[in-house]
Amino acid sequence: MEHVIATYVIETSLPLAHAAEVLAGEQSTGTFVRVERESDDLRARFAAQVESLEELPLTGASPLPGSVGDPALRRRARLRLRFPLDNFGPSLPNLLAAVAGNLFEIKELSAIRLVDLDLPPAFAERYPGPAFGVEGTRRLTGRPDGAMIGTIVKPSIGLAPSELAEVVGELAEAGIDFIKDDELQGNGPTAPLAARVAAVMPVLERYADRHGRKPMYAFNITDDIGRLEANHDLVVAAGGTCVMACVNLVGLPGLEFLRRHSAVPIHGHRAMFGSFGRSEQVGIAFRAWQKLARLAGADHLHTNGISNKFYETDEQVLDSIAAVREPLLGLTPTVPVLSSGQWGGLAHATYAAVGTTDLLVLAGGGIHGHPDGAAAGVASMRDAWASAARGESADDAFATSPALRRAAELFGPVRA
Amino acid sequence: MEHVIATYVIETSLPLAHAAEVLAGEQSTGTFVRVERESDDLRARFAAQVESLEELPLTGASPLPGSVGDPALRRRARLRLRFPLDNFGPSLPNLLAAVAGNLFEIKELSAIRLVDLDLPPAFAERYPGPAFGVEGTRRLTGRPDGAMIGTIVKPSIGLAPSELAEVVGELAEAGIDFIKDDELQGNGPTAPLAARVAAVMPVLERYADRHGRKPMYAFNITDDIGRLEANHDLVVAAGGTCVMACVNLVGLPGLEFLRRHSAVPIHGHRAMFGSFGRSEQVGIAFRAWQKLARLAGADHLHTNGISNKFYETDEQVLDSIAAVREPLLGLTPTVPVLSSGQWGGLAHATYAAVGTTDLLVLAGGGIHGHPDGAAAGVASMRDAWASAARGESADDAFATSPALRRAAELFGPVRA
Repeated sequence: MEHVIATYVIETSLPLAHAAEVLAGEQSTGTFVRVERESDDLRARFAAQVESLEELPLTGASPLPGSVGDPALRRRARLRLRFPLDNFGPSLPNLLAAVAGNLFEIKELSAIRLVDLDLPPAFAERYPGPAFGVEGTRRLTGRPDGAMIGTIVKPSIGLAPSELAEVVGELAEAGIDFIKDDELQGNGPTAPLAARVAAVMPVLERYADRHGRKPMYAFNITDDIGRLEANHDLVVAAGGTCVMACVNLVGLPGLEFLRRHSAVPIHGHRAMFGSFGRSEQVGIAFRAWQKLARLAGADHLHTNGISNKFYETDEQVLDSIAAVREPLLGLTPTVPVLSSGQWGGLAHATYAAVGTTDLLVLAGGGIHGHPDGAAAGVASMRDAWASAARGESADDAFATSPALRRAAELFGPVRA
Repeated sequence: MEHVIATYVIETSLPLAHAAEVLAGEQSTGTFVRVERESDDLRARFAAQVESLEELPLTGASPLPGSVGDPALRRRARLRLRFPLDNFGPSLPNLLAAVAGNLFEIKELSAIRLVDLDLPPAFAERYPGPAFGVEGTRRLTGRPDGAMIGTIVKPSIGLAPSELAEVVGELAEAGIDFIKDDELQGNGPTAPLAARVAAVMPVLERYADRHGRKPMYAFNITDDIGRLEANHDLVVAAGGTCVMACVNLVGLPGLEFLRRHSAVPIHGHRAMFGSFGRSEQVGIAFRAWQKLARLAGADHLHTNGISNKFYETDEQVLDSIAAVREPLLGLTPTVPVLSSGQWGGLAHATYAAVGTTDLLVLAGGGIHGHPDGAAAGVASMRDAWASAARGESADDAFATSPALRRAAELFGPVRA
């Protein structure tokens, strides 16, 4: 019989093994009193089973609100639970009811966090995953090797479509591979999606006519389900080669719905991830979440980059990038998207850790804010990543790239 | 100009006013360096504004991981930010990008929690909200007044459709108003939705033929978007009068999609709420979340009940029930669903706090596990709620209801 293994970090004042059984019961056959027809045979077939339980040191974090028991007795553990696939079938929403449903509310647990999921092949039979991934994105951007360099339109919101067209023209001339809307840019009245598409695509088409390469623009089409198809079609009809969806805002089912229809790569933004991902005591870790987003069809997935302006350590960011690059049920590989606070000076340290240029590296301020303008910003990023991929040191890159040296004056120092 | 007011609880080691500005900037016009074209005029029109900032006492909870600054300098505050509606328009997913997007990842904040939202009428113009609500549910269940008494099929999963039909038959004969699938019951091979519908509905139809009243069965149709309509249609074609969707698992857009199509009330389950709702340091509080779920069309919404087996205090539960009952932009009122650990002995205390019987009160073990069986379980609940609504004391109910007295032997004591 096929199974799903869900890995949790739990903390409890109960004996660990007992708390593990409470969790397993709550998420499969149990209620608070044993009821008629809950036979031993039924429990044997449907109950979630404790696969392993390994004690971990306490972290010093506060217990979750409402947890019961003597806090001094708290112990922490890594728990693997085995769920029969037949309990829910290979459906992402129904899977989540079991592995990530009511369990976060159990008061016997003072910490409860889903940190990984091992899924059987049935999920990949139902969900085809990314349609484009690394190879499709390289083909559409005309960038067969090296890190793909991109940027976010800034200011985040407020530009009129004509101003946006100017920005995009400058970025295209600067040699960028990829441009995206900010996640805050939706379909507001100042720059509705249709007006952005109408303003941006002719600029990119003219650039493509001259240079034989069309930068990819990820239009943020995040919206209600009933609007996703029309939003997508608007982009594709105008020659657009990418749509962006905020995975948590359209929902995993919204992403999966879009995937069934999409003719271009889907750029998966992780806005709202922190609401369930940041606490060390509750929620869903990136490693588990990214598997769901990949199954649902994200061609690109935001991981943040090192030295970013958000809360994660570099170690966490690098683990996120590694997680997105790990094989998953034979799916087409998703492109990790490194963003936030990125500039050329981080290329060598990132490359040393991740060992690949199959990445989309986005710099907002790092390109728009380069002292010599966007073209120099792009050059500084491309020089640095090419140098790193050739096995050079950061010092080598610094010595040979004037654009990187100038960037370092503002954003430095370079990370070795 | 129309605005959205988002209310947060924040904690920071920065000066509070500065942290508030970081948050406002990140979620509207800002990036980490000021960029070209980010004019003062643009900022004036699009920047989120601090509406109020009120210091709160620290709670003793640990700072969020990755937060910066001296923990000894931490201060906590209630912050109201005013966002121009034009930044995102009246779209729930685009709204969330602004009020609940990247902000949970800001490292200057050691706590960041969205606790309320004040939305302008434009949202109700776009989203019609519940189609049935309290009145429609009373009409369809044939229960014009008094608390609507319901139950969850237990065991949660594993019953064959023929066994499920037996359970439903017993519950109907017991006089129940409402029965629901467990949220763990999806569309697995043991009891697929189609087989459940085929087994359950003839039982309810025959009961209705005899008694002129059809108990409402909420079939859990939670699944991918592409299956929601067919799942719904299957239920309605068989005479079913309710569908259940796990709001966080189909996503708010999935719920909204279902609402556009649904011919029956939508029972909104809150599975996975704890992943972003339980921490006092991060995420989205029930009071904010339930507004989104109601706009998206939830006719019923789970709040838990007092003395439940989950983490919330009775005060929190009662605030959740009150929140769901507060008027919202003229929408049809949603029915709060009280569940988990419920039995008749909680009726008087609950009624004293909420002052209404426009509730769906679900007891799983409290009905299935009553010492004298399900009919006595239903009678004990109905007796208790009717007594409370008549203004009697719990002692009065205990004196006059044998079923309640028997229930108290197992579940007691009665809560005054």
